[in-house]
Amino acid sequence: MKTLITGGTVVNATGTVAADVLIDGEQIVAVLAPGSQLLGSDLTQSVDTVLDAAGKYVIPGGVDAHTHMEMPFGGTFASDTFETGTRAAAHGGTTTIVDFVVQYAGENPLDQYALWHEKAAGNCAIDYGFHQILSDVQDSSLTAMDELIKEGVTSFKLFMAYKGVFLSDDGQIVKAMQKAADTGSMIMMHAENGAVIDVLQQQALARGETTPYYHGTTRPWQTEAEATHRAISYAGMTGAPLYIVHVSAKQAVEEIAAARDRGQNVFAETCPQYLYLSLEEQLGAVSDQWGSFEGAKWVCSTPLRSRAEGHQNHMWQGLRTNDLQVISTDHCPFCMKDQKELGLGNFAKIPNGIGSVEHRLDLIYQGVVLGEISLPRWVELTSTTPARMFGFYGKKGVIQPGADADVVIYDPNAHTTISASTHHMNMDYSAWEGFEIDGGVDTVLSRGRVIVSNGTYTGTKGDGAFIKRGLSQYLV
Amino acid sequence: MKTLITGGTVVNATGTVAADVLIDGEQIVAVLAPGSQLLGSDLTQSVDTVLDAAGKYVIPGGVDAHTHMEMPFGGTFASDTFETGTRAAAHGGTTTIVDFVVQYAGENPLDQYALWHEKAAGNCAIDYGFHQILSDVQDSSLTAMDELIKEGVTSFKLFMAYKGVFLSDDGQIVKAMQKAADTGSMIMMHAENGAVIDVLQQQALARGETTPYYHGTTRPWQTEAEATHRAISYAGMTGAPLYIVHVSAKQAVEEIAAARDRGQNVFAETCPQYLYLSLEEQLGAVSDQWGSFEGAKWVCSTPLRSRAEGHQNHMWQGLRTNDLQVISTDHCPFCMKDQKELGLGNFAKIPNGIGSVEHRLDLIYQGVVLGEISLPRWVELTSTTPARMFGFYGKKGVIQPGADADVVIYDPNAHTTISASTHHMNMDYSAWEGFEIDGGVDTVLSRGRVIVSNGTYTGTKGDGAFIKRGLSQYLV
Amino acid sequence: MKTLITGGTVVNATGTVAADVLIDGEQIVAVLAPGSQLLGSDLTQSVDTVLDAAGKYVIPGGVDAHTHMEMPFGGTFASDTFETGTRAAAHGGTTTIVDFVVQYAGENPLDQYALWHEKAAGNCAIDYGFHQILSDVQDSSLTAMDELIKEGVTSFKLFMAYKGVFLSDDGQIVKAMQKAADTGSMIMMHAENGAVIDVLQQQALARGETTPYYHGTTRPWQTEAEATHRAISYAGMTGAPLYIVHVSAKQAVEEIAAARDRGQNVFAETCPQYLYLSLEEQLGAVSDQWGSFEGAKWVCSTPLRSRAEGHQNHMWQGLRTNDLQVISTDHCPFCMKDQKELGLGNFAKIPNGIGSVEHRLDLIYQGVVLGEISLPRWVELTSTTPARMFGFYGKKGVIQPGADADVVIYDPNAHTTISASTHHMNMDYSAWEGFEIDGGVDTVLSRGRVIVSNGTYTGTKGDGAFIKRGLSQYLV
Amino acid sequence: MKTLITGGTVVNATGTVAADVLIDGEQIVAVLAPGSQLLGSDLTQSVDTVLDAAGKYVIPGGVDAHTHMEMPFGGTFASDTFETGTRAAAHGGTTTIVDFVVQYAGENPLDQYALWHEKAAGNCAIDYGFHQILSDVQDSSLTAMDELIKEGVTSFKLFMAYKGVFLSDDGQIVKAMQKAADTGSMIMMHAENGAVIDVLQQQALARGETTPYYHGTTRPWQTEAEATHRAISYAGMTGAPLYIVHVSAKQAVEEIAAARDRGQNVFAETCPQYLYLSLEEQLGAVSDQWGSFEGAKWVCSTPLRSRAEGHQNHMWQGLRTNDLQVISTDHCPFCMKDQKELGLGNFAKIPNGIGSVEHRLDLIYQGVVLGEISLPRWVELTSTTPARMFGFYGKKGVIQPGADADVVIYDPNAHTTISASTHHMNMDYSAWEGFEIDGGVDTVLSRGRVIVSNGTYTGTKGDGAFIKRGLSQYLV
Ligand SMILES: [Zn+2]
Ligand SMILES: [Zn+2]
Ligand SMILES: [Zn+2]
Ligand SMILES: [Zn+2]
Ligand SMILES: [Zn+2]
Ligand SMILES: [Zn+2]
Ligand SMILES: [Zn+2]
Ligand SMILES: [Zn+2]
Repeated sequence: MKTLITGGTVVNATGTVAADVLIDGEQIVAVLAPGSQLLGSDLTQSVDTVLDAAGKYVIPGGVDAHTHMEMPFGGTFASDTFETGTRAAAHGGTTTIVDFVVQYAGENPLDQYALWHEKAAGNCAIDYGFHQILSDVQDSSLTAMDELIKEGVTSFKLFMAYKGVFLSDDGQIVKAMQKAADTGSMIMMHAENGAVIDVLQQQALARGETTPYYHGTTRPWQTEAEATHRAISYAGMTGAPLYIVHVSAKQAVEEIAAARDRGQNVFAETCPQYLYLSLEEQLGAVSDQWGSFEGAKWVCSTPLRSRAEGHQNHMWQGLRTNDLQVISTDHCPFCMKDQKELGLGNFAKIPNGIGSVEHRLDLIYQGVVLGEISLPRWVELTSTTPARMFGFYGKKGVIQPGADADVVIYDPNAHTTISASTHHMNMDYSAWEGFEIDGGVDTVLSRGRVIVSNGTYTGTKGDGAFIKRGLSQYLV
Repeated sequence: MKTLITGGTVVNATGTVAADVLIDGEQIVAVLAPGSQLLGSDLTQSVDTVLDAAGKYVIPGGVDAHTHMEMPFGGTFASDTFETGTRAAAHGGTTTIVDFVVQYAGENPLDQYALWHEKAAGNCAIDYGFHQILSDVQDSSLTAMDELIKEGVTSFKLFMAYKGVFLSDDGQIVKAMQKAADTGSMIMMHAENGAVIDVLQQQALARGETTPYYHGTTRPWQTEAEATHRAISYAGMTGAPLYIVHVSAKQAVEEIAAARDRGQNVFAETCPQYLYLSLEEQLGAVSDQWGSFEGAKWVCSTPLRSRAEGHQNHMWQGLRTNDLQVISTDHCPFCMKDQKELGLGNFAKIPNGIGSVEHRLDLIYQGVVLGEISLPRWVELTSTTPARMFGFYGKKGVIQPGADADVVIYDPNAHTTISASTHHMNMDYSAWEGFEIDGGVDTVLSRGRVIVSNGTYTGTKGDGAFIKRGLSQYLV
Repeated sequence: MKTLITGGTVVNATGTVAADVLIDGEQIVAVLAPGSQLLGSDLTQSVDTVLDAAGKYVIPGGVDAHTHMEMPFGGTFASDTFETGTRAAAHGGTTTIVDFVVQYAGENPLDQYALWHEKAAGNCAIDYGFHQILSDVQDSSLTAMDELIKEGVTSFKLFMAYKGVFLSDDGQIVKAMQKAADTGSMIMMHAENGAVIDVLQQQALARGETTPYYHGTTRPWQTEAEATHRAISYAGMTGAPLYIVHVSAKQAVEEIAAARDRGQNVFAETCPQYLYLSLEEQLGAVSDQWGSFEGAKWVCSTPLRSRAEGHQNHMWQGLRTNDLQVISTDHCPFCMKDQKELGLGNFAKIPNGIGSVEHRLDLIYQGVVLGEISLPRWVELTSTTPARMFGFYGKKGVIQPGADADVVIYDPNAHTTISASTHHMNMDYSAWEGFEIDGGVDTVLSRGRVIVSNGTYTGTKGDGAFIKRGLSQYLV
Repeated sequence: MKTLITGGTVVNATGTVAADVLIDGEQIVAVLAPGSQLLGSDLTQSVDTVLDAAGKYVIPGGVDAHTHMEMPFGGTFASDTFETGTRAAAHGGTTTIVDFVVQYAGENPLDQYALWHEKAAGNCAIDYGFHQILSDVQDSSLTAMDELIKEGVTSFKLFMAYKGVFLSDDGQIVKAMQKAADTGSMIMMHAENGAVIDVLQQQALARGETTPYYHGTTRPWQTEAEATHRAISYAGMTGAPLYIVHVSAKQAVEEIAAARDRGQNVFAETCPQYLYLSLEEQLGAVSDQWGSFEGAKWVCSTPLRSRAEGHQNHMWQGLRTNDLQVISTDHCPFCMKDQKELGLGNFAKIPNGIGSVEHRLDLIYQGVVLGEISLPRWVELTSTTPARMFGFYGKKGVIQPGADADVVIYDPNAHTTISASTHHMNMDYSAWEGFEIDGGVDTVLSRGRVIVSNGTYTGTKGDGAFIKRGLSQYLV
């Protein structure tokens, strides 16, 4: 099965080039000067399929390095399964996710790892890897890290919040970081000061502040900035590579920038919600249907932050300065009905999460349209760097021979309107309802197969395979 | 004329890949999965030449963005002509230089630009572009900037030192920066505080401090850090993109890092001499032949800095943190005999400059061997980013179809010893005498032609062509 | 002649105390527990005068370390003579000024010093010292520094602006700083980047921007922050103590704070106008009488700054953090009629200066009322530290035995309305018209004599004597 | 009882003055011009005692704001009782201590407060106040804060280390800070990251690193700098005034300086041991008597730090820049015999503490001799600021009428050699054995009584009284 993509503009992380792309089986086998002539032969004649990308961008398929399919949380599950979630991702041009194996306090990391393989195997539309969550780190967790690295799980997420559920104390964190330093693996950190947030929540609830808005006010930027500083301090002591997830506070970016200036291996992602949405507009929203509970749609942690404080613009700046290197979604959808509703009358009981896995490429492409970032930077942030960061660049994240033929043809002349009525995620609302994008996904290939064409899913459940990852390729 | 490079590891800025490279005429036309099979045909059979790169790196030809061939300075000329200098560059794997058109105070920028074309045309072994030096900026200089941008000269070098020769005062600098901001062109800055250096020099000479060592002590790091801060301040006021040349002081790197953290378009290069050499060891050297005048070999500005102060290690760190983006040579060779000797008894009269155009790739590759930087970063610093920074990426700086076939096959198993007795630069000494490199240039192609093979120059004088550059492709 | 001040609260820099103050002749001879009993004797019976300070503050007389009486500038003279200006100062509770001997480029510093003694001698209501302005520093200026220090002039003001008038180039500045470091004397710096301001002024005028408002826009904060950084850099190189005059930009405060954190002897003053007034409200003011030329009343350099940029609040903060140590007035009054009018149609020709010498204590006391600073800090900023900074603490700046009996009884229950119709400065307008102060000067003593009582001047022309100052007592 | 101190140089925080001091009963009643004449009467004739201070300094008695008399710790007690410790303090010119009421986890703060009154009452040679330690903060602790403030205990010490003993978790700390912000009281913080230190200790012991030297290596500067940053972050969130105790790491000083630059009410003390002693020289010491256990003499927390890392010089700098405002001793003596010996074979079991209460004034005066700080700064750091910081300035900390007559006559021509054989603390060794001081205490008065004269204690047990303190007088 041979496919030739002709006439497009290939966008890689360092620039663009007019080039054709030849795919043989599951891999890209050549990138060629446009015209599809090679030593005299017209390649369009020799392939099975020709995809015309004239006037369009040909980009490596998106890599979403932070998703939570069917994640168990607070007695319910994130509403997207591996099946629905990865299919939605495919619609949006994302051809790889790295999902989190969940190990709660008291559970065995390796058992959970096995369980997550069961959940994903045979269900995914696109390729997937795993990070491992380690909660309440024990000696057995440290041993498990060695095992998991052999399995291709080379990144471990720790939490500085959620006592009794996810939290590891600071001594546990240091031990896990020592192991990461020894093995060259990556520590991913949920950097929020849970101890302080718990106090602020109790005090707010005691004052009768129960609506979703107070989810934001009880997790002020200081709780993120402080935890970020602390994690960086431990990474500096131990030598562990550190990746801060879902950064939303500008002061956290400043901590990260300072560490990077010193040459520390400190990295960070932000998410589309922290670029576009805010405490005032979303968490504080009121609707006919839901009243002041409307804001529950956007309850996630770290929370949406105050626009008046200027965080959103600072996130874009961080993306430009490369103090933020990756854009993920932290896709963790819950429906309003039965799920978010659990927190009616108590914001602390609202399942945390927003679903965006389908919209990431579009939403960040809009940043190109708005002049916030350049076209190559779009690809770098959404595909190249996440692949490098988590050790599977070359296979993914780039249009070059030898790479998996995960390719997206993106049309800058298309237009996309986001709505719950048209999205493919298993959610009864959209956090992005009414957002307009000046561009759109045209065609999506996963390892050589066209899985989305003209908005129609053409793949098969179970196409996606597990990716055994190596160590980070982004360390200095 | 078709060439196929097989079996090598292609190194681009974001990573490496095993791939073959097909060249047709002057350009790369395809990058292919290794094995040189394409849709069934064995390409090795269809090309004129097959170059075996097994076990070797295939990299985009080096881009040296800072050279001064036959530069007039202090009554003499830099000892390398465009002919000798570019041939030496070719030997070292550099396939593009960007040289400086010199306009001294009182001269007409456009006349000088025409003169430099005369000097270079028909003499160069490799392709070349021009930056324009603007001294003592006048209104006519601002007009010339518009003209020169149309010519493909999109970067303009100003000086904060050398009163009466190169210096523009701060008001002139601001005016030139305003023009750069309007046109999107790049200001390159020689950031040294000349007014203070002049005082320190006079005072040192008055104290009888006349040897080359005092060239260093009269240009202390403060004079570089201050000027760097000042240039950044003006760039911030005007919105001009700014590129600091030949950074050697760690405090200057800190100023640059702070500006970059704020999102300013501030960039910088360092040079091999600031990574390896020092005030104590080189400027303070004593030899049988030259006595304490030995240090004259390394008189350049900014000066070699004190190893005790830690600048050298900080330059490597800056390269890792991307606070320094480019490595150039500032190639400006003068012979000891008759040239450097002009400063016997008065360091201030020693022609300023070191010759390294031949050794840049080797010297920085040694940084890979030493673990200072990664292999892709080597290519990024010496080829990809200089091409992007100065507006000719795509044509140069990358191995991809459509790019000029400027390709270097680099052998990590070779060994190179640097010496005046073997180098190809027109110098009677080597600043790098005795340096050992664990690697070496194997083959060099310039626009498809092999111009160096096994250490032998196989090209023809005048092969090199002028590159009309666009605006920087590196702006955020 | 013996005076006893009873019943008041003595405020010194570190705190307050209920105490009586006994004056004998020109000096304080005792500070006593309240009640005026000493070893059984009722002191009120033994003195010539008893001043009742019940319910009032007893503070050391104000020290205004920055005034320009009858200063020649742009073909006219500051409108207050030593006679009128010092009398006005006395009304406002200031009992010492340090005025600037003006030496323009081309003049001889020592001649000017002699001339200034002639101007002041026999005319002053209060004691006075001199700083020496050194313009266009020559070798003879450096020699003059030695002479002047012997005379009790231990501080030297340099300018980074006003080319051809006051400006010293950076080499000259460094030489003067070297001399200051050698002698332990203080460099005072007018830190504005004149070269850049000149360009911005010419460009503004060419665009027809001629009103006073553009005085502000052509001296943006960057020109102050940059010059401040540069001066600090030179002070660091040479070891000179440095005092930045009339700081108005928050970014300048940040530069000063950074230097102080490193332990450099860097100090700074701000002035009441930078705490209360702004670009928008004053420089941009429009009146019936003057139209948009109204703003000329507040043309001074550094200029009033944008309130939107937040400088004013940052000045208060700098006073609290001790990154600003002194409040002076930079008193340099010009009348609107005939003087400020010189700049009708060209803001660059408006004589620079604001008159506040009479109102400093009141205006800063209002900061105590507003909660910006504490009561002891008020005394420290306006009296104690200026005296320590410039080498005459002990004689002035403190209520303690041995000190000159320069004492102000300040009534926190009084109320003061500032107006040109009531002020004592020789100005036809007030920069502070309509300002209301919740407090007021009650009684002023200068070396034991009551010179202001109930708003009436009771002194004699020529009471004031020259103060021979020592080196700074504030160095770390 | 009337005393006159004549002929001395009175040193206060802002400067020195030649003045006589008249004491009537327990208070200073007058500070007078030297010569002891007042309105004609020779005061020396009217007083009971004349103390001749010619050639000597007359300073306010020292205030040691951090002592632990007979503190229970690890099953033993600090070896100085209130009786022995305060007498030793008196010998060294310290006339006030503020000691810590110890409340361990599980104990009732108010009960402990009552108990500490029992310990101190009738035993002290000098006046004393109390800070309250709050461990494992409960709601009842918050209530106790209100009670204690009424009692004149306005400062509360929390711990970020010593789990199960002293530690409050971060939520508890925030609650206590909220209460402090509400009441204007001061939080004192032991800023070390206990969770990390616990891990490092366990790992060190597991490696067989058991000697006192490893006490230092397992509490690296990062654990102090991180905790300091965290405490500052919480203080910023809550608005609580914060005072960091026993700062020893330069990076902690940098955190404090940054907070102070922002205008936060953040303060800090250091101790003599962090200025003079080091990890290498003391903790790593080996002796004939004790072998490598010799270092136990200097086991305290925060630990002595590496001289190679430069902390000691940075502490002096911090004292000059006022980023450190107070010098206390953290006096907590333990004998080697039976006490420090508990940690033979396990550094973690060595009772933590050094005894210096007797030597603080001498050791810091030596800093004046060495040129590290000025003479007024010596008084400010050791007396004036601690009194202001903790709310009893005016009563103590200054030579002025109305102040308690706590006065030290200090002789700069004396010489003091420190030794266990001559000191008055109840310790079987001296941490300062062999230190030589170029000055010495001559006479000490406590509330008007001479309690030390010529090295002889002349007071009576129980002279000292409890000081009911107000809120801090040092807040901005
Ligand atoms: Zn998270
Ligand atoms: Zn997540
Ligand atoms: Zn940075
Ligand atoms: Zn150059
Ligand atoms: Zn500071
Ligand atoms: Zn002035
Ligand atoms: Zn402690
Ligand atoms: Zn303690």
